[in-house]
Amino acid sequence: MIADGKYLTALWYDGESESVLYIDQTLLPHQLIIRKMITFEDGLRAIRWLEVRGAPLIGVAGAFALWLGMRESAGRGAPEERFNTLAERLLATRPTAINLARGIRELKHDLHSETLLLQRAITFREEEIERCRRIGMNGVPIIRALAHKKSDGVVNILTHCNAGWLACVDYGTALAPIYLAHNEGIKVHVWVDETRPLNQGSRLTAYELEEHGVPCTVITDNAGGLLMQRGEVDLVIVGADRITRNGDVANKTGTYLKALAAFDNGIPFYVAAPETTFDYELETGSQVPIEERHGNELQVETPDVAVRNPAFDITPARLITGYLTDKQTL
Amino acid sequence: MIADGKYLTALWYDGESESVLYIDQTLLPHQLIIRKMITFEDGLRAIRWLEVRGAPLIGVAGAFALWLGMRESAGRGAPEERFNTLAERLLATRPTAINLARGIRELKHDLHSETLLLQRAITFREEEIERCRRIGMNGVPIIRALAHKKSDGVVNILTHCNAGWLACVDYGTALAPIYLAHNEGIKVHVWVDETRPLNQGSRLTAYELEEHGVPCTVITDNAGGLLMQRGEVDLVIVGADRITRNGDVANKTGTYLKALAAFDNGIPFYVAAPETTFDYELETGSQVPIEERHGNELQVETPDVAVRNPAFDITPARLITGYLTDKQTL
Repeated sequence: MIADGKYLTALWYDGESESVLYIDQTLLPHQLIIRKMITFEDGLRAIRWLEVRGAPLIGVAGAFALWLGMRESAGRGAPEERFNTLAERLLATRPTAINLARGIRELKHDLHSETLLLQRAITFREEEIERCRRIGMNGVPIIRALAHKKSDGVVNILTHCNAGWLACVDYGTALAPIYLAHNEGIKVHVWVDETRPLNQGSRLTAYELEEHGVPCTVITDNAGGLLMQRGEVDLVIVGADRITRNGDVANKTGTYLKALAAFDNGIPFYVAAPETTFDYELETGSQVPIEERHGNELQVETPDVAVRNPAFDITPARLITGYLTDKQTL
Repeated sequence: MIADGKYLTALWYDGESESVLYIDQTLLPHQLIIRKMITFEDGLRAIRWLEVRGAPLIGVAGAFALWLGMRESAGRGAPEERFNTLAERLLATRPTAINLARGIRELKHDLHSETLLLQRAITFREEEIERCRRIGMNGVPIIRALAHKKSDGVVNILTHCNAGWLACVDYGTALAPIYLAHNEGIKVHVWVDETRPLNQGSRLTAYELEEHGVPCTVITDNAGGLLMQRGEVDLVIVGADRITRNGDVANKTGTYLKALAAFDNGIPFYVAAPETTFDYELETGSQVPIEERHGNELQVETPDVAVRNPAFDITPARLITGYLTDKQTL
């Protein structure tokens, strides 16, 4: 999508340097810095420290990191063993999103050729972009229908965290239908949840939308309920880190609270995710491992106080109006 | 209650200087600074800039500010007119909490004597303290009963914003039963919602509880839903800024989201408030004016983005298990 006046994606392969380039998302919105991932450790670090984040993006970044790891360890031991060791280290960084495991699976069958591994990673990236574009196409009719019902034609959409192109290489999941609707002239306005503690909403989603020219307003994570009570929200769309067989959704902590409020106020609540986010091995959301992050992310001012910082929660399927996927609108 | 090793209340009359002393809550938890309110403008400013905040406390602070205003304008016009002008200016500062109007009402019948006005304000403060103590007494049996049911005896109580002694002169509303339960040896642990955008939870509630020795853990406003899903919350207690005839509760924005989550998980959700917070003139919560505060309170990092900052929301009576008041446990 467009940022800093030019077309950009969150991560891409650079043939000239034979390495991977990506936007360091910890520095946004203040600085748009492109970093180079040359080694497996670079990739691991980028994922661990959230320089790249968002379920689809860490899947793609993980695939490239694996390729880098296999390239640098070439000739030192059996490929299967090297691969498994690297995969295990990668999976330990971010346990909740299933996409990392999916990125690893993509590369599993080409262990004996670094060229094929790279090709797989490149293809996987392109497929994720295409999946996100399709999510967008599938979501536009829902926004269009709501626009027809509004007297001012403006559809107010609330989203939590960042599920835009930064989270997904390009287009995004939750934001893909919003970008495509905006591009075709439908009037949209986005309520952007701040998304504590790391402010992916007020830092990344607001940045994305502003750069692309989509009207938006930042609110605290606490405010969405009141806006829904007052009829100021027409639709909620969020992304997902993992969707289990029964339709439960693991997503950024706080998503569940917005789903409850949307349900309580009769507002449609959609989850947008590519098929790479569906985990058919788990029956329900209660089985999804929830990442606990360090309490210092909250920057609490009271000294010495204990802090808990679970990064995700589970939205039960019963609260979800529908899933926007790359296959079809369910 | 205890802070900085000594017994303190949030605001008191100082006979020596014939003025009002109060803790400046904008500087906590870093600095415990006592300020002096000498003029009506001092009081107005303290309320407007949240140096004093919390529904019961602004009721008391408003009463003292009125006395100061009547004292300094003595002899310059009819008392009724002076009083009404001062009251109007006070009410405009914080429209949601009804306690400010109640504080004004307390003084209404003694307009012709500054001595009587002061006495009324002093008595009103003492009555509010006593009401909070009774809220605490009425809430303890609920906590005690939960403690008996827990195998480890620890009752995990979630609270939003600050409804402790800082919000109420002494004891607090939501925190009063927690302090009294703790004092009698019941094991309590408090989940403290950060409470964005002004962090009254992580700055004030965490400070209060730490100073008093009550175990607590700060969480983001987003995290409570997950903790409830996982059985890590036994009880929710919040304060209130206004309770309407049908039992709807206006309280700090985000309260409604926690009430929804508590209801969804079968967790008791109590609202603690003195009778001064009940507004029998309004039928439902939808009639309560919701204060909109400045967007700069969010400190959004993305430049030039729009911000909305409603300070309160409405929790419908159907989600509330009970009200802890100074009269009786309903």
